[in-house]
Amino acid sequence: MTNEHSFKKLGDEIGDFVSERDWDQFHSPKNLAISLSIECAEILEIFQWLTLDQSESSDHVNFQHLQDEIGDVMIYLTTLAKKFNIDPIEAALKKMEINRQKYPVELVKGKSDKYSNYK
Amino acid sequence: MTNEHSFKKLGDEIGDFVSERDWDQFHSPKNLAISLSIECAEILEIFQWLTLDQSESSDHVNFQHLQDEIGDVMIYLTTLAKKFNIDPIEAALKKMEINRQKYPVELVKGKSDKYSNYK
Amino acid sequence: MTNEHSFKKLGDEIGDFVSERDWDQFHSPKNLAISLSIECAEILEIFQWLTLDQSESSDHVNFQHLQDEIGDVMIYLTTLAKKFNIDPIEAALKKMEINRQKYPVELVKGKSDKYSNYK
Amino acid sequence: MTNEHSFKKLGDEIGDFVSERDWDQFHSPKNLAISLSIECAEILEIFQWLTLDQSESSDHVNFQHLQDEIGDVMIYLTTLAKKFNIDPIEAALKKMEINRQKYPVELVKGKSDKYSNYK
Repeated sequence: MTNEHSFKKLGDEIGDFVSERDWDQFHSPKNLAISLSIECAEILEIFQWLTLDQSESSDHVNFQHLQDEIGDVMIYLTTLAKKFNIDPIEAALKKMEINRQKYPVELVKGKSDKYSNYK
Repeated sequence: MTNEHSFKKLGDEIGDFVSERDWDQFHSPKNLAISLSIECAEILEIFQWLTLDQSESSDHVNFQHLQDEIGDVMIYLTTLAKKFNIDPIEAALKKMEINRQKYPVELVKGKSDKYSNYK
Repeated sequence: MTNEHSFKKLGDEIGDFVSERDWDQFHSPKNLAISLSIECAEILEIFQWLTLDQSESSDHVNFQHLQDEIGDVMIYLTTLAKKFNIDPIEAALKKMEINRQKYPVELVKGKSDKYSNYK
Repeated sequence: MTNEHSFKKLGDEIGDFVSERDWDQFHSPKNLAISLSIECAEILEIFQWLTLDQSESSDHVNFQHLQDEIGDVMIYLTTLAKKFNIDPIEAALKKMEINRQKYPVELVKGKSDKYSNYK
């Protein structure tokens, strides 16, 4: 499980990997955002033809494949975020605060409508 | 900065947020994978018309907007991963090991070709 | 309905629209491919939280919204294809021939597995 | 080149292809929208690491590969649109009228800012 060292370790490992290969020249934020979208599409492909129920089940979802693709998304998200000194976990915690205000429990409970419908 | 508590805290906060709103019913892995793709497209939109150089610059990239969207991607990635007991940071560390073997320094240094070209 | 003039008319209208606005400078194929992905995500957003059954129904899908987004995808697809003198309709007809060979009826009938499973 | 028969022919061929394989059961609009996004990501992958200038050039872009992927996008777009009796070419022509009003020449000439900036 993730401990205090894991996220820092990931950033360091990506940094070494990229500089050893001299790949920073390809890693403009625009290119990283493109790569992130492509990797997300590869996750989506895993669920493409499954029903919503099947998508819950290890009978239909290859765990190793999904884990690899989640890893790829996390790698590109971290690489992109680092370019702007953003910590994705802290960014998510901040966004949760915003979401709590955008979607007040009493208005959205059990509903999936977009928040804009409640403005 | 992320410390030992941050990632666990994020998982817990998402869990509370979702259960308070009774939204788990909408959170099939297939729906979460769709949501992840949509949020990545919102990151991509930030860089849509910029040159690669402009995408590096805070003159052209709105930091707050980017941080919010990175937060959204991290939230959906964590929510999806949790459904399969996958830790995205550990998944990324494991994928880095695979990447190191797929892209040996001596073959790919300074080149952006897909790894399959080196097989 | 589409008649012999419609597709040519679309190409001409896009050409005029872009040149009047001096927007060809932003329309590198890479930028157009990004825009195409963003517009597809906007279609996806229409179906984000619907069940597969709900996605069939005009009770849950806003026709006007969907028509607009399909229009946007078609506009960017045509603009990108034109850069390489590709006709998207002819490209689709050619791809249908390939698909017929990749997915022989006797092997795939009633199955959604990826073609690679049948190789 | 596309003539009066091409687009109708495409719709008919897709219809035959799907019914011969009994695949309509998988073709909920939600699944088709997912497939459309995945195919767009495959176009994006062609341009992933190219500069904007390189993306213009047949030295860097494999024509056959691009034509195939454009074909795939057009096939899914047509299949999805048909579910709602939408003609993608007519939808694009209607959207062009909207775009002409959203982006008046005198306000946006030579600028790529989103239309919302001009409201």
